[in-house]
Amino acid sequence: MSDTVFMADLSWKTYAERVKQGVVMFLPLGATEQHGPHLPMSTDALTSAGISAGVAREVGGLVAPTVNFGYKSQPRMGGGQDFVGTTSLDATTFATVLRDIIRDLARHGIRKLVVLNGHYENMMFSIEGIDLARRELRYDGIEDMKIMRLEYWDFTRPETLVELFPEGFPGYALEHAAVMETSMMLHLHPELVDMSQLPDEPAAEFPPYDIYPTRPEWVPCSGVLSPPKGASAEKGKLLFDDYVVGISAAVRQEFGL
Amino acid sequence: MSDTVFMADLSWKTYAERVKQGVVMFLPLGATEQHGPHLPMSTDALTSAGISAGVAREVGGLVAPTVNFGYKSQPRMGGGQDFVGTTSLDATTFATVLRDIIRDLARHGIRKLVVLNGHYENMMFSIEGIDLARRELRYDGIEDMKIMRLEYWDFTRPETLVELFPEGFPGYALEHAAVMETSMMLHLHPELVDMSQLPDEPAAEFPPYDIYPTRPEWVPCSGVLSPPKGASAEKGKLLFDDYVVGISAAVRQEFGL
Amino acid sequence: MSDTVFMADLSWKTYAERVKQGVVMFLPLGATEQHGPHLPMSTDALTSAGISAGVAREVGGLVAPTVNFGYKSQPRMGGGQDFVGTTSLDATTFATVLRDIIRDLARHGIRKLVVLNGHYENMMFSIEGIDLARRELRYDGIEDMKIMRLEYWDFTRPETLVELFPEGFPGYALEHAAVMETSMMLHLHPELVDMSQLPDEPAAEFPPYDIYPTRPEWVPCSGVLSPPKGASAEKGKLLFDDYVVGISAAVRQEFGL
Amino acid sequence: MSDTVFMADLSWKTYAERVKQGVVMFLPLGATEQHGPHLPMSTDALTSAGISAGVAREVGGLVAPTVNFGYKSQPRMGGGQDFVGTTSLDATTFATVLRDIIRDLARHGIRKLVVLNGHYENMMFSIEGIDLARRELRYDGIEDMKIMRLEYWDFTRPETLVELFPEGFPGYALEHAAVMETSMMLHLHPELVDMSQLPDEPAAEFPPYDIYPTRPEWVPCSGVLSPPKGASAEKGKLLFDDYVVGISAAVRQEFGL
Amino acid sequence: MSDTVFMADLSWKTYAERVKQGVVMFLPLGATEQHGPHLPMSTDALTSAGISAGVAREVGGLVAPTVNFGYKSQPRMGGGQDFVGTTSLDATTFATVLRDIIRDLARHGIRKLVVLNGHYENMMFSIEGIDLARRELRYDGIEDMKIMRLEYWDFTRPETLVELFPEGFPGYALEHAAVMETSMMLHLHPELVDMSQLPDEPAAEFPPYDIYPTRPEWVPCSGVLSPPKGASAEKGKLLFDDYVVGISAAVRQEFGL
Amino acid sequence: MSDTVFMADLSWKTYAERVKQGVVMFLPLGATEQHGPHLPMSTDALTSAGISAGVAREVGGLVAPTVNFGYKSQPRMGGGQDFVGTTSLDATTFATVLRDIIRDLARHGIRKLVVLNGHYENMMFSIEGIDLARRELRYDGIEDMKIMRLEYWDFTRPETLVELFPEGFPGYALEHAAVMETSMMLHLHPELVDMSQLPDEPAAEFPPYDIYPTRPEWVPCSGVLSPPKGASAEKGKLLFDDYVVGISAAVRQEFGL
Repeated sequence: MSDTVFMADLSWKTYAERVKQGVVMFLPLGATEQHGPHLPMSTDALTSAGISAGVAREVGGLVAPTVNFGYKSQPRMGGGQDFVGTTSLDATTFATVLRDIIRDLARHGIRKLVVLNGHYENMMFSIEGIDLARRELRYDGIEDMKIMRLEYWDFTRPETLVELFPEGFPGYALEHAAVMETSMMLHLHPELVDMSQLPDEPAAEFPPYDIYPTRPEWVPCSGVLSPPKGASAEKGKLLFDDYVVGISAAVRQEFGL
Repeated sequence: MSDTVFMADLSWKTYAERVKQGVVMFLPLGATEQHGPHLPMSTDALTSAGISAGVAREVGGLVAPTVNFGYKSQPRMGGGQDFVGTTSLDATTFATVLRDIIRDLARHGIRKLVVLNGHYENMMFSIEGIDLARRELRYDGIEDMKIMRLEYWDFTRPETLVELFPEGFPGYALEHAAVMETSMMLHLHPELVDMSQLPDEPAAEFPPYDIYPTRPEWVPCSGVLSPPKGASAEKGKLLFDDYVVGISAAVRQEFGL
Repeated sequence: MSDTVFMADLSWKTYAERVKQGVVMFLPLGATEQHGPHLPMSTDALTSAGISAGVAREVGGLVAPTVNFGYKSQPRMGGGQDFVGTTSLDATTFATVLRDIIRDLARHGIRKLVVLNGHYENMMFSIEGIDLARRELRYDGIEDMKIMRLEYWDFTRPETLVELFPEGFPGYALEHAAVMETSMMLHLHPELVDMSQLPDEPAAEFPPYDIYPTRPEWVPCSGVLSPPKGASAEKGKLLFDDYVVGISAAVRQEFGL
Repeated sequence: MSDTVFMADLSWKTYAERVKQGVVMFLPLGATEQHGPHLPMSTDALTSAGISAGVAREVGGLVAPTVNFGYKSQPRMGGGQDFVGTTSLDATTFATVLRDIIRDLARHGIRKLVVLNGHYENMMFSIEGIDLARRELRYDGIEDMKIMRLEYWDFTRPETLVELFPEGFPGYALEHAAVMETSMMLHLHPELVDMSQLPDEPAAEFPPYDIYPTRPEWVPCSGVLSPPKGASAEKGKLLFDDYVVGISAAVRQEFGL
Repeated sequence: MSDTVFMADLSWKTYAERVKQGVVMFLPLGATEQHGPHLPMSTDALTSAGISAGVAREVGGLVAPTVNFGYKSQPRMGGGQDFVGTTSLDATTFATVLRDIIRDLARHGIRKLVVLNGHYENMMFSIEGIDLARRELRYDGIEDMKIMRLEYWDFTRPETLVELFPEGFPGYALEHAAVMETSMMLHLHPELVDMSQLPDEPAAEFPPYDIYPTRPEWVPCSGVLSPPKGASAEKGKLLFDDYVVGISAAVRQEFGL
Repeated sequence: MSDTVFMADLSWKTYAERVKQGVVMFLPLGATEQHGPHLPMSTDALTSAGISAGVAREVGGLVAPTVNFGYKSQPRMGGGQDFVGTTSLDATTFATVLRDIIRDLARHGIRKLVVLNGHYENMMFSIEGIDLARRELRYDGIEDMKIMRLEYWDFTRPETLVELFPEGFPGYALEHAAVMETSMMLHLHPELVDMSQLPDEPAAEFPPYDIYPTRPEWVPCSGVLSPPKGASAEKGKLLFDDYVVGISAAVRQEFGL
């Protein structure tokens, strides 16, 4: 218990001491969302929490309980809400969850917060949640809280992309349950990956627009947007290291650690 | 992975099969709340999830991701929001989180749901969340979802109370971070309990009213509302067994398993 | 008009003077809810207002207009929403009504407020309403308002319980439209009680969980949760005196009157 | 109790019978608002409830508990929120109160509802509340509820205006706490009127616009927008009779009684 | 571009200069609402924007983008929501749009704002929007913003009414798509008026109450509430001049220009 | 008036005919946002409306009034809310505006809708608005409305990008007020572009994360995220043609025109 980085595992007394020392808090944003037949629905929650923990260990931070339900999945981003199991929140619900958490963290003294997002659809709503929290904190006279907000994949180094995609990186758009996430999970939680279930479908091709009602036929049956073939724990480690190193550096610089 | 009861650990395909078979889903409601110097702040989340998993194993059910932030702690119930670390949601936020989760579970086919609460302050707001969800489901023509809602401690057998409190059970009101919760955690997660930190304070005494601004002096400094002395893993097992047996029986009867 | 304790009966000028003198304001929380075949649906509104007025007369306070619609009735607490006539508010509606009232009372100078609840289901939502009001008042720089919040029945003296329940008090859980409320109404508003309609059913027995859709068969047909036989105006006076004396003492102590 | 028209005074059983018989329900909308130094702050609540009761007696209807907090007072309509004692609700709060009440009335079988408004500022928000209720009822398949909505003063007969204002009726705009309301209260609740406090100020004169922050100097110090001199119980009876007769006729015609 | 009064046509740099100089901002409130067979659905948006621009030119002000969707049309005011094309906002939506716009205008330095309403149904909800904005601005310490709010038709001079209605002005109640609005549009946007489509129906006659579901038969088929015959560009100019002159004078006086 | 594509310019009767014929409706989403010293703050509103009109003319559609206030600008996308003039809506406000508009369009018979977005920050919130509208429409039994949603720039042909960026397209991320938008405006509204004010700053460079409070120094002083040099009306026409041709084709295919 003494060397955990997870806030929830601490007693409040231990936590209170850490807060007093100016600890950096990480808030991982996940989802409960289909990730193909080979990955668990907790993939976004586990990767964001795993990276948060990795960085927290580097910089002496703490990790808040993961927000484990995310904003509604979109076909072109994560397959969409039609997949059984994708269990999501409305925009206002998600944003107010963040607002409330951040408000209480700040009220107790946290002044350095990293909101680390692992589910693309959460991005804009996490921006709103932070804005709502900061507005209320401002009303309460708390103006010295600094918040960093990021999508972890934006810290992938170009060299790593070359390693992972020797034939050229097709872009993040279709990287849902594909090489990157599968590799990450093989590195972080291999017991939750079933490599025997890797789908054998071509990458999805989407038109440059959305249609509602959504078109199930646009999304590969497996829910995987591009082939995860070639994923490996080694590649996962490469990615994970990129994220831990890159985000740690950013955190140290921005928070003056 | 194959024998997990946790929904989030499953791939969507496996989950979809279970849903088609009419699986009972458990939704544990926890909190991130001070539980004295000896228990982790995740206590309510871990006990509600642990009991949910225990019952799910008994009855062949699944456990949804824990709602790990709860409604605001009250001094007379859990020490109150002033304790550093108690990180909570507004009423509307909490109720809409439940509404959204239940709505998506139902949309995908879940028709048997057990909302299992481990944080007293969540009770009425979980009732509201369920009501909001059922209203929207009704608008959508879904009227055959059955929901059981419970506080797990209401399944403690009188015999167990006698065993735990040979001098008479003082009532649930002050059982915050006290003998019952400490015993449960010693049974479920001993590695997160620090018995060297057991506070040595008398039970709290509250007047029959609340005062705002809250009175920190009404709550013992430790955050523990009555002495946890005497807590043990054995007592925790007694309690846990009561809950698993009692709730399993209720679930079987109500859902016709 | 001059000796009324009801705020609404005063002209604003008279009210303004009382506010300037630092008057204690009482806000009664009621409901419009079935109370069996012998009691009016206004029972919770009338008892909370009646006790508020009794205490206000003792301590020189004023009583705001009663919040006469409450949170949704629950089967195990008040029979549930299925009874024709039980007309209730959503959680957010109820909490914002309280927030708005308290905000305006404070804006005009009230600094001592007693929120006196007469409907169990209102409890947690009145806590939320007070919290929302205090948050906004804090944003406005008003931090010196003191609020007491209570359920009146928590002021019943043990001696009175012995008097009313010589065979032992079965607890408040089933005291809906039963001996205590019926006695109170016989004391306060005998013209609204029809003793010829006293139901003759045994006490309700509930399992330790809720089920939705609710089970009408769990609740006695009359809506009364335990037999009101033995209720009398004398017992009502005993209770009423307990409440007035007990709450007056608490008010005097907390508000330094 | 047996011949009351007030829903809240009935037991649920009696109410249920009346609902089954197709009773017309009246929902009075009031306010807690300054009405000069001579009238109580409950004036709008008491007049709307009094007229509702009068009409209900005529047509065999029932009167729901008065909505006794209204939308925020405006300087040009009722003096504004700056007067101590004017205690009001936000727009969303007020509209959702109406929505919730109407929803439950309809759920229990009420199909004929008259929303009778006694506070000008409530008008548009009562329209919204009704619209929100009807939308949700429509989602629930309830489309046969008929709702009449009115401001009672719109039923003043021209002959009565001539009688009350022999020198010409200056229009409703400034009739706040003036001849009409004072007369009504002298007829309905003379014990709450203090004729010794009639202010002696000229009528307010407003420019054709609002200014925020509001200008206290625009509103007469008394809060009365035009001189109530000449008010009498006889004139109040004339008005009251107009309202009861006129609204009863409209109700009979629209609801086919 | 240099001499436009429209904020949206300016670059931010030019706008910033104007704000620094203390410019008066006009926010026109319109609607997308049927206005008979001869007027465009943008009538309220175009008249409020046109008058805003006229006044802004007089006083050296700027005009914000028009709020071009308004609150729901009512049968007795604008024909009601049943007319195809009347596309409107809920109360909360409309009020929060205003709140957000005003908040940002104030945040950037605007301290003189005129909310100029051209759609009757917007009136009370614009009051709410302003109140919500001012509340939040107050929380942010901004208390020196002055807001004027008006319905433009309240600036019609009596002489003009005599000119337009030689047989006596029947009141604003039925002036929907009638002589005044048609004349205004003939003056401001003659290309959008189709005088060949002037309906030939008598004025609507409404009872002194609303009925829901609304009664289409109460509203003339054309959507025009009283005959627009006699409308002319000359009359429109008379009206427009009244508004520009009258509002400019009020603005100059209130904002000390 | 007869050949306009703008819904707001039509009388309701003409509009009703078009709706009956199954017209495709376009709803342009803009913003009021800084676009450098050379472009008007209406840029996103004018481009989305202009393209909507262009496509509507091609396919025989209509264009609804532009939503001319958008979601809050973000530093890495549009410079951020700190620029004077950027006047924006909260997430819930923006999404409910869309919900309400779509609900009324559908209620009147529109079954083919294209939501055409011109402001990046609106993207996710327009998805939420559509989802909220479709949910309510579903409750109302309207399930046959088809909605296309798009960001117009996603229809830029690769050939055009080569033409515009002979040295390689740096990606959409920094194309705020840069070559593409400036060219578009030179084509659509040259009178609103001031080419003498083209800023001479290098492209912005952002780290892969956000920081709050935002860092004004990260954004070029001009508000332009990459150099607009080289913008021309000809390039604007190329882009505009791409959008009209591409979107028209998509609309024809998806709506079977």
